[in-house]
Amino acid sequence: MKLPGQEESDVSSAYENVPTGELDSGPGSRPSPSGSSDTDSRELGVTKDPLLFIQLNELMGWPKALEWRETGRWVLFEEKLEVGAGRWSAPHVPTVALPSLQKLRSLLAEGLVLLDCPARSLLELVEQVTGVESLSPELREHLQSLLLQRPQHLIQGTDTRLCWGSAHPREASHDEEAPLKEQRQNPLRKKLPPGAEVGAVLAGELGFLAQPLGAFVRLRDPVVLGPLTEVSLPSRFFCLLLGPPTLGRSYREMGRAVAILLSDPQFQWSARRASSLHDLLAALDAFLEEVTVLPPGRWDPTARISPPKCLPSQHKRLPLQMQEAKSPSAWRRARFEHRRGHLPHEPSPELQRTGRLFGGLVQDVRRKASWYPSDFLDALHPQCLSAVLYIYLATITNAITFGGLLGEATDGAQGVLESFLGTAVAGAAFCLMAGQPLTILSSTGPVLVFERLLFSFSRDYSLDYLPFRLWVGIWVATFCLVLVATEASVLVRYFTRFTEEGFCALISLIFIYDAVSKMLSLTYAYPIQRPGSPAYGCFCQYPDPGGNESQWTRTKPKDRDDILSMDLGLVNASLLPPPECARRGGHPRGPGCHTVPDIAFLSLLLFLTSFFFAVALKHVKTSRFFPSVVRKVLSDFSSVLAILLGCGLDAFLGLATPKLMVPKEFKPTLPGRGWLVSPFGANPWWLSVAAALPALLLSILIFMDQQITAVILNRAEYRLQKGAGFHLDLFCVAVLMLLTSALGLPWEQRLTGLMVFLLTGISVFLAPVLKFIPMPVLYGIFLYMGVAAISSIQFTKRVQLLLMPAKHQPDLLLLRHVPLSRVHLFTAIQLVCLGLLWIVKSTPAAIIFPIMLLGLVGVRKALEWVFSPQELLWLDELMPEKKSIPEKRLAPEYSFSASDSEDSDLMYQPKAPEINISVN
Amino acid sequence: MKLPGQEESDVSSAYENVPTGELDSGPGSRPSPSGSSDTDSRELGVTKDPLLFIQLNELMGWPKALEWRETGRWVLFEEKLEVGAGRWSAPHVPTVALPSLQKLRSLLAEGLVLLDCPARSLLELVEQVTGVESLSPELREHLQSLLLQRPQHLIQGTDTRLCWGSAHPREASHDEEAPLKEQRQNPLRKKLPPGAEVGAVLAGELGFLAQPLGAFVRLRDPVVLGPLTEVSLPSRFFCLLLGPPTLGRSYREMGRAVAILLSDPQFQWSARRASSLHDLLAALDAFLEEVTVLPPGRWDPTARISPPKCLPSQHKRLPLQMQEAKSPSAWRRARFEHRRGHLPHEPSPELQRTGRLFGGLVQDVRRKASWYPSDFLDALHPQCLSAVLYIYLATITNAITFGGLLGEATDGAQGVLESFLGTAVAGAAFCLMAGQPLTILSSTGPVLVFERLLFSFSRDYSLDYLPFRLWVGIWVATFCLVLVATEASVLVRYFTRFTEEGFCALISLIFIYDAVSKMLSLTYAYPIQRPGSPAYGCFCQYPDPGGNESQWTRTKPKDRDDILSMDLGLVNASLLPPPECARRGGHPRGPGCHTVPDIAFLSLLLFLTSFFFAVALKHVKTSRFFPSVVRKVLSDFSSVLAILLGCGLDAFLGLATPKLMVPKEFKPTLPGRGWLVSPFGANPWWLSVAAALPALLLSILIFMDQQITAVILNRAEYRLQKGAGFHLDLFCVAVLMLLTSALGLPWEQRLTGLMVFLLTGISVFLAPVLKFIPMPVLYGIFLYMGVAAISSIQFTKRVQLLLMPAKHQPDLLLLRHVPLSRVHLFTAIQLVCLGLLWIVKSTPAAIIFPIMLLGLVGVRKALEWVFSPQELLWLDELMPEKKSIPEKRLAPEYSFSASDSEDSDLMYQPKAPEINISVN
Repeated sequence: MKLPGQEESDVSSAYENVPTGELDSGPGSRPSPSGSSDTDSRELGVTKDPLLFIQLNELMGWPKALEWRETGRWVLFEEKLEVGAGRWSAPHVPTVALPSLQKLRSLLAEGLVLLDCPARSLLELVEQVTGVESLSPELREHLQSLLLQRPQHLIQGTDTRLCWGSAHPREASHDEEAPLKEQRQNPLRKKLPPGAEVGAVLAGELGFLAQPLGAFVRLRDPVVLGPLTEVSLPSRFFCLLLGPPTLGRSYREMGRAVAILLSDPQFQWSARRASSLHDLLAALDAFLEEVTVLPPGRWDPTARISPPKCLPSQHKRLPLQMQEAKSPSAWRRARFEHRRGHLPHEPSPELQRTGRLFGGLVQDVRRKASWYPSDFLDALHPQCLSAVLYIYLATITNAITFGGLLGEATDGAQGVLESFLGTAVAGAAFCLMAGQPLTILSSTGPVLVFERLLFSFSRDYSLDYLPFRLWVGIWVATFCLVLVATEASVLVRYFTRFTEEGFCALISLIFIYDAVSKMLSLTYAYPIQRPGSPAYGCFCQYPDPGGNESQWTRTKPKDRDDILSMDLGLVNASLLPPPECARRGGHPRGPGCHTVPDIAFLSLLLFLTSFFFAVALKHVKTSRFFPSVVRKVLSDFSSVLAILLGCGLDAFLGLATPKLMVPKEFKPTLPGRGWLVSPFGANPWWLSVAAALPALLLSILIFMDQQITAVILNRAEYRLQKGAGFHLDLFCVAVLMLLTSALGLPWEQRLTGLMVFLLTGISVFLAPVLKFIPMPVLYGIFLYMGVAAISSIQFTKRVQLLLMPAKHQPDLLLLRHVPLSRVHLFTAIQLVCLGLLWIVKSTPAAIIFPIMLLGLVGVRKALEWVFSPQELLWLDELMPEKKSIPEKRLAPEYSFSASDSEDSDLMYQPKAPEINISVN
Repeated sequence: MKLPGQEESDVSSAYENVPTGELDSGPGSRPSPSGSSDTDSRELGVTKDPLLFIQLNELMGWPKALEWRETGRWVLFEEKLEVGAGRWSAPHVPTVALPSLQKLRSLLAEGLVLLDCPARSLLELVEQVTGVESLSPELREHLQSLLLQRPQHLIQGTDTRLCWGSAHPREASHDEEAPLKEQRQNPLRKKLPPGAEVGAVLAGELGFLAQPLGAFVRLRDPVVLGPLTEVSLPSRFFCLLLGPPTLGRSYREMGRAVAILLSDPQFQWSARRASSLHDLLAALDAFLEEVTVLPPGRWDPTARISPPKCLPSQHKRLPLQMQEAKSPSAWRRARFEHRRGHLPHEPSPELQRTGRLFGGLVQDVRRKASWYPSDFLDALHPQCLSAVLYIYLATITNAITFGGLLGEATDGAQGVLESFLGTAVAGAAFCLMAGQPLTILSSTGPVLVFERLLFSFSRDYSLDYLPFRLWVGIWVATFCLVLVATEASVLVRYFTRFTEEGFCALISLIFIYDAVSKMLSLTYAYPIQRPGSPAYGCFCQYPDPGGNESQWTRTKPKDRDDILSMDLGLVNASLLPPPECARRGGHPRGPGCHTVPDIAFLSLLLFLTSFFFAVALKHVKTSRFFPSVVRKVLSDFSSVLAILLGCGLDAFLGLATPKLMVPKEFKPTLPGRGWLVSPFGANPWWLSVAAALPALLLSILIFMDQQITAVILNRAEYRLQKGAGFHLDLFCVAVLMLLTSALGLPWEQRLTGLMVFLLTGISVFLAPVLKFIPMPVLYGIFLYMGVAAISSIQFTKRVQLLLMPAKHQPDLLLLRHVPLSRVHLFTAIQLVCLGLLWIVKSTPAAIIFPIMLLGLVGVRKALEWVFSPQELLWLDELMPEKKSIPEKRLAPEYSFSASDSEDSDLMYQPKAPEINISVN
């Protein structure tokens, strides 16, 4: 069960969502001084302020060679110019000394504030700004020429080549207001969304000024201020802070303070709407009311704080007056929702019971029908091509791995070929019909486990497996239809994280156990030759011409190069290796003839290599090396690359390791069966009825597996717009069960695009290539899948807590609110449940394990007697830790992660949380 | 070359240094309002303020069940009570909202400030504090009883068991001022240094108060305030902040603000000396002048900032007025020293040339003689025992590894036994005589390389190795004496990091290359049997009774169980394994008789296992799992444990892997030589003169190796008090060279304690155990040493930068100040030098590579033409990155690391930087 579409949504929504999301939730929370309809704009999202790019131009070189240089820029965070190194710093949380803000406030209070200034060019603006009485005419002219001077920008290309934006830094260019080539070509511009505006801050020390000069301008109509700004976008704000030289670079710091203020969504919102200086100062004071203070002795002011993974919800910045204006009950409810994100016992409309037979299915079809054409049109995007490639490779890797194991589990009754075909047929059909096409149908762990149990059951009782399986399939389809008819999908709301984690942990453990045990079984098949072990030696014995083996005569060597038969002076025998011996008509004799040396250790090496290589490649994504495109490819295709490496290593050494078994032609893996399974075969007639029992179990399993995946996919973080289709999905599964059972293909697959499954279908003809894949490599990948799955759940993190001394535990919110002993108790209960499931799975009663899984829901219900609702809220119902911080749940668009953004210096891409509760 | 003593200084100086260091550099930098002799106290360090432990008792439960509960505590950082979870949070940088500080200021301005209050008990204090006029008598009595109420403390034991400190939280205990049992037993008390004082802050909302009540008390004589505080230490400050309930928990936040102020060294210093309310408010304003502000929209105020690795130097907090008061030149000089820590071209007294023959040696002996007795007395500390164990194991691991390789390098002319003896004899002697006994003498990479080159040279020219080597040793001793006489050690100041890194990188690469090539050579010795390879099959051929091998007669099997000779129907032949065959008088015949299967892959597995296990164990130190004692042991003994694991795995499988060769008795490894090497042997007489040439090279090598280590050890970070003894050390080396050459023991070893080397001497008798160590395991450890050494140098970090896109590069100070292209150029030059060294090392001219190493000094000198002094300052002369932040160099005691401090919640242990430029 993998959740696809993360890749796509990552990329496509990166630029649209960040700024709008920010400005969406930002304004309106603080009462607007000018009294505009801020509440409406927040609630209805009618007006969205454009994104503001802020840059600070600093006056350098006083007194000898004055020049403006851009030394800082802001969108969400701050980037500083490293003057010595000539590069932009990494984005970081802006910090400023408190006195700079206070000095700025007094400078603004005494200075010039122009709101809705009608200037239409830099020249007009400069004239307006320098039009204050205190300046003498000469000073004014000097100042104007200085302000019109072209500033230096450090423009950083995508290829990290740098160039200084201004070739003639000290040439005054009064009439040259057209954007420069560097400005237009600045790659930053492409990263800013359409409609973005600029706030330009100019600050510095100027010796000929007798007193400070401060000006804050809001332009009525934003205008491109010639070469003033790094990007040729229209400027909305212009701020000038000049004064006589003082100790410390105070004007620069004041300039940073203005820039930080403007980059604050609340202040910016107020500044856009301020009608007087008073409004502006009030906004500044409101900002000061909310700042956090770091004490000087415990914090190095030069340290840079990396952007936090999650930004605080702007809802927290609601002033108290507004909170009280709401009715108390509404407020309490909002608080509650705030904590919970959504109320778990108030199901979404998709999960409300209609009370009619197939009512849910009908509703699903109605709801989904309107989106059906868009499902295809949405795919006409170039990014979908790379998604298809990725999902295709993931699907066939999966099909190969599961096919290989299925072949072993069913003694070859099914194999890789069936795995491919089943994936392709069912996937494509589900893609066309299902309610939630983002679910990928593919073989999953629990079904594989069940299939193996069913096979060993039918072998133990000498049943004809495939017909028996057909009947199980027919019954499962029936049960699924019943579940659809009775709208059983509404039960999914009782599946909490407790259930999901139990399910996932069991499957992951089965994966890990199977991978290791299969690897170890290879060391029995290919024993290691210890010194003194009897399995030593083998030679080749030829029958003598008379056919009497026991009569030994001395033969001449056939030719002088035949060292094996010649050198030993043997009679009718040589030391030819067994295959060669057989080819020449001899018989290999001796206890060592059936042992192949070196295979056991080589298999172990291949197993470990593919496992560790897959793990390492997966982690490449978060490394600092290579461009992010390379890292992403390496990480996304880690399994494929690990398999390729394993095959390469195996081929290089050329030893006879066990390989994947694939049929040489396009026919069922089991010899002597057609594509259609006969419904009766050699089984007695009553078996078709008895098959209902395992079918019931399998139905439970499929229901849980499919629905848990859908629940996760439909969670709020993915911001899916088209609604869910739980009933429809289950209906599709029912139909597909019938189809795959009749064809004898593996059950239960999922989908994301017709393309992928068409490709998978074609891949059936990959057989000649697949036979070079060594089995130990597949075991290694299998182990990797299990380990990756079990590492991804919060349960594992809590188990790790058991081993950590309290003071070294990470600062999880969970641990801030629940006593450690209660956390450990919850973990212990989960461990016991898992242990019981494992025991059941290992006994002859294994086939009933789906019922035990369902039992987890009951155990979870019983836990409500043990834990307080508050504790369960933190322990169970929230999402895995990284998303569980409740303050952040209302604003998923704030979930930034800078590590991936290769070509966005200032913008952050929201990262969809990675959930992988079960194994693909 | 490992630098010992880090472990000891870590532990012993933890508590003494942190608080005093903090208070030492803290006060005095801000001008004292009361005008006391702050400059003197700073410069001379006469008065040191005691450490202040601050706790916040919060009034909870209004209006129903009022009780005080300790919800926060501070020493260097803040710990919060997690009320829900019932535990103390991890220490973090305290942050507070700006309005809380402002509200606190106005409350203090209006409230009661008692400086040098003479109260001698809690009762007296409470009476004084509540003696304000505004309170009615009933209110006063009510308040007094509330203030005397025993508060609840969460006391956290070292075993992480928790108990609530007050059994009767709501029982007023007017006369019960004796410290409680919980207070006395609080493990926190042991962690606070003697003389520590408490600052108690009481804050909360009290409904029956009509107006806020603020009181700040400084007690004239600190007094234990009964059960008020968590630890029963005398309180110096008492602050009460009560008021009517308001929105938000403003009094609690004001209480936190007071606590944060008091935990600030500057404010605390002023508060201790304030003589009026005005002084106190001035100190608060001075604090506000220096705070850093985090904007609300970009920072979640609930996020907790981990304590920074390094705290800002309090010298930076010098106000501008004071900076200017200094003479400009003094200020510039201070700024320069501030950047550089110490001036590199102004050598320390140890490195000043005297101009007399052996002048430096005489000075060293004089300087060191006074410390000689203390060198022994200092060792009478229980922590030295664990250090001895650690260094002993490290030394024998080293001796085994190097001995094994030396044995291979010299075809058994020397071996493990010699390695042990050499280490023991030279180590013990150096320990007794040398100037810097903290240097550990032991075999090092470059000398091993040289020894191998010398051996192949003498083999190629059919020289008698050991006598030749004796002469080389005699010459080296002579040269060393000349170097001592001419005080050549003063040259070490030309060894910058450039030289050190070139030296270290070469040695590390040799280690890595050797380990891998030796491992691969095993696959030639034990070939892998590919299908169709001719090396297949072997059987055992018996001579017939007549002794004529070529005549084959059929023999009866000797007994029915002898399957090997019976089952095959062979004549005079069986498939017995070769050793068994030889035992029974037969001859193994066939190409497969000399191949041992599975050994190659098993060796590879052992090699990889020991390497990765050693790496993983080394990293356990920084993991969150296990108590820190366990982690420290696992990490410190990673090599030993990895060797043990490798041996265990090898023994479990029981294959005939190649093992370490050790003589069975205590005699030289080479058969037929005595312990004393004859000075002439079979060599011509002129060879004793010609040996001067290789001796010159070896002298350079030893000089560089030994002096570079000493330079690093004597760097300021280690705060060694007894001074260096470069000349004396070199003299000792000269004497020891003579001794080891005459005995034919490996050269060049170092030391830390007689004990270790006595133990090492005794370990010579470990031989019966050592023969179980497989060689691939040693190669793995060898690889680990090389990789660990090369990872530890800044050069490697800069090479990694070459592979990183600019925007993903870490925020190194280096990169903030030097353009990336210049950094890359410097790295490239180092790479070229390394490449040249490698080429020289690989050609027949290899033996001159010590001269090339010396050439690095010249290259570094030439670099001054290519790079600006400013660039070289950042690139070369500073210490490796983590110590290079110049702001932090003046205050090494601020180098905290919380990860190791198992039993100190509030205190941090300064961590000595780990330097390991070469390989132990």
